[in-house]
Amino acid sequence: MSALPQPRTVRTVSSIRELVGSCRSAHQTVALVPTMGNLHAGHLSLAQIAAEIADKVVLSIFVNPTQFGPDEDFAAYPRTFDEDWARVRDAGTVDAVFVPDVAEIYPFGADQAVRLTLPPLAQELCGATRPGHFDGVATVVCRLLNIVAPDLLVLGQKDYQQFILMQRMVADLRLPVSVISGPIQREADGLAMSSRNRYLTTAERQIAPALHAMLQYVRSALRSGASDYSQLQAEGARALAEAGFRPDYVEVRRLADLAKPTADDRPDELVILAAGWLGHARLIDNLLV
Amino acid sequence: MSALPQPRTVRTVSSIRELVGSCRSAHQTVALVPTMGNLHAGHLSLAQIAAEIADKVVLSIFVNPTQFGPDEDFAAYPRTFDEDWARVRDAGTVDAVFVPDVAEIYPFGADQAVRLTLPPLAQELCGATRPGHFDGVATVVCRLLNIVAPDLLVLGQKDYQQFILMQRMVADLRLPVSVISGPIQREADGLAMSSRNRYLTTAERQIAPALHAMLQYVRSALRSGASDYSQLQAEGARALAEAGFRPDYVEVRRLADLAKPTADDRPDELVILAAGWLGHARLIDNLLV
Repeated sequence: MSALPQPRTVRTVSSIRELVGSCRSAHQTVALVPTMGNLHAGHLSLAQIAAEIADKVVLSIFVNPTQFGPDEDFAAYPRTFDEDWARVRDAGTVDAVFVPDVAEIYPFGADQAVRLTLPPLAQELCGATRPGHFDGVATVVCRLLNIVAPDLLVLGQKDYQQFILMQRMVADLRLPVSVISGPIQREADGLAMSSRNRYLTTAERQIAPALHAMLQYVRSALRSGASDYSQLQAEGARALAEAGFRPDYVEVRRLADLAKPTADDRPDELVILAAGWLGHARLIDNLLV
Repeated sequence: MSALPQPRTVRTVSSIRELVGSCRSAHQTVALVPTMGNLHAGHLSLAQIAAEIADKVVLSIFVNPTQFGPDEDFAAYPRTFDEDWARVRDAGTVDAVFVPDVAEIYPFGADQAVRLTLPPLAQELCGATRPGHFDGVATVVCRLLNIVAPDLLVLGQKDYQQFILMQRMVADLRLPVSVISGPIQREADGLAMSSRNRYLTTAERQIAPALHAMLQYVRSALRSGASDYSQLQAEGARALAEAGFRPDYVEVRRLADLAKPTADDRPDELVILAAGWLGHARLIDNLLV
């Protein structure tokens, strides 16, 4: 039996500030990995990246009410703290798990919260289907940054639009933190790891890798010089539908800012993003070209 | 000729951060006094308070585009940097004057800025006449706090609703700063000092003290036990109109949070707030009971 160091569980703003303050006094850098829990290998890979760059790693677990729409799965979102904590302990890369309750993050209530509104990109792609979602993410991430005051914010590339928007928020609000991203972690058959994969039936789980396969097909075409993005997007959506998905979008965008590309853009400046429903689950994925 | 220390003029985010960082390293506390320039004795009294509490004082001058409505006086707002700087130097209480241009505060443009939305109080009182005004104030103050990272934020009580809303924003966004306010500075005849007083004609200037006189009358009534707030408010508005104002509002509110009081509230927990137009100028004032 190896005796791994136990991550501290911290529940209040004052306690996490005290902890980070003592790191500061010791001239240690701090990275924050924000999550909504239900941790999988994707989250742990971000903690691993954080631990390689910063001296101390704080992983937060907070199911944020302001980023769920009225018809979304806030109440049903899986809350699995004991399992999460055990995974974090076994990984050995996290120094503190910050698990605030709603009143710590929204002292005046989530309904009365000071809200952030992001630029128009937040209404496109996933934002078109989930109005207000990214504004809600910004609303909580801004608070987490103010509370933890990390040197580094580590986000996953599966939520690529979220990563770009948080990078934008940090730059625009002049928050003193660096934002980095970690690559998507996938199952053996290519399915991107996600907390929402647990909503899939066995039959749906077998269909799910078609999302990644479609992205690979579009990437090959782009690498081979295809530049009729509209046609590729339509083909991609058709492939998703044929596999059994209800497609939401398939889009080729610029990597740097998710602007729409022109036919002159180089393939290695592009990313393909897609989303679709499989039964009750809405899956998203993307691939850098 | 006395040789007062000259405040440093700082124009960029990186320079002000460097300056404040060196204060931090020297274990000095820093206070921020945000202004839109056109400084008068009211602003200087805030700098004086800041200097009494903190080791170093940063006074910012920034005419913030996001807090002006489309029909308001953004373009015409008085910009008087040379006079402002001379006043600050003569006062001897400010260590650095932070004068960023718009691109420093809004690197993606003011139109594309990440915006803050305050709770419903921001739509009442002055917010009812100036939709989005306080959200714009929050949008800039949040950035100034992220940039300067002061220990103390010093705001004037003339903009009492602004003070309460910024206190709320700081608490709700978990910004690590204390907010304090300084009392209203008045001319000899009672008129609250304001940059917008310069819009008054000589005739209007003679009428202007009626705003303060009305507040004093309502305060006397409240101290004498009057608790029919609606009647007092109507009387106050009538007095303003009779003096030559076009009244906007006269309201008795709770001091702590600007909620509407009940007849059971103690007078010393109340504040009377008023606004009205005199020609082109919109004047505001308030009085703690």
